[in-house]
Amino acid sequence: MSAPTVVPFPGKDQHRHTLALIVENEFGVLARVAGLFSGRGYNIESLAVAETNDPAVSRMTIVTTGNDAIIEQIIKQLRKLINVIKVTDLTEMPYVDRELALVKVSANEGAKRDEILRACVIFRARVVDASKNAYVIELSGEAQKIDSCLQMLEPLGILEIVRTGTIAIARGDRIDTI
Amino acid sequence: MSAPTVVPFPGKDQHRHTLALIVENEFGVLARVAGLFSGRGYNIESLAVAETNDPAVSRMTIVTTGNDAIIEQIIKQLRKLINVIKVTDLTEMPYVDRELALVKVSANEGAKRDEILRACVIFRARVVDASKNAYVIELSGEAQKIDSCLQMLEPLGILEIVRTGTIAIARGDRIDTI
Repeated sequence: MSAPTVVPFPGKDQHRHTLALIVENEFGVLARVAGLFSGRGYNIESLAVAETNDPAVSRMTIVTTGNDAIIEQIIKQLRKLINVIKVTDLTEMPYVDRELALVKVSANEGAKRDEILRACVIFRARVVDASKNAYVIELSGEAQKIDSCLQMLEPLGILEIVRTGTIAIARGDRIDTI
Repeated sequence: MSAPTVVPFPGKDQHRHTLALIVENEFGVLARVAGLFSGRGYNIESLAVAETNDPAVSRMTIVTTGNDAIIEQIIKQLRKLINVIKVTDLTEMPYVDRELALVKVSANEGAKRDEILRACVIFRARVVDASKNAYVIELSGEAQKIDSCLQMLEPLGILEIVRTGTIAIARGDRIDTI
């Protein structure tokens, strides 16, 4: 998260990178990682962190932007942090990335409800709550797909959006755990 | 994230709460929120943060555990933080919560591949990458559903798991934005 106008060392060579972090499941590691980004003015577009199948470690996915030198600095600094076990720049290899969103859309008339259901068919989304004035839809896919669906729903009146941020995993049998 | 053995003020009245935070999209807000939890020893089970339809604000979903007094303290402290606009404890109202996971499973023999595809049908999951030795499946739903699917896949050999952590939204037409 950052104000889009305050990109550090801006330039035309800014690229989006998706980083996978394996971290020890200890107090403070999230604060250290977030502090590293904010202290040095690095941009975080999204961050998701949850436990893995090993209760001792969590996995973080961070989407960040910067030129090659900045990304290299970020990765080097992350690797120095206490409780950070492994940092992988997934952008350097074939990978799959996905995001989940819950979107509340105004549905106070029949025409809007029809349009929402049409969008659900096209984007393989699901209505997970319905009330007199609003539908909540669940939508997953690549970030761009979610953006496209949101654009289609925008004219109906989007009341609320919650997104998980991107998670990503390498294709093939490469394993990024400890 | 925290070592499960270091729950602050442990007791039988520990409950899981899902907090929705609307925050200004500024450097440092994630570091402040994470620092509040780690500094006071509050538990974070998962955290997801991404932009909303308003580029000036982001939305965070934090799943935390504690007794009623601890949760009340956490919410009060969060509300005092700079750049935190709104904090809602969704656990106090009807809400929908969802999580997304990418799971790499060993698929080096036909019997395993059959079993993975059976799990996909049952849990409405999708194979999003396949190679000689591994499948990657995409799975969304409530956290418990994801746990159940992981239990079913465990005997086959789970190579890697990435989860987004929970996101949540109030049911009906209640709106938790600025």
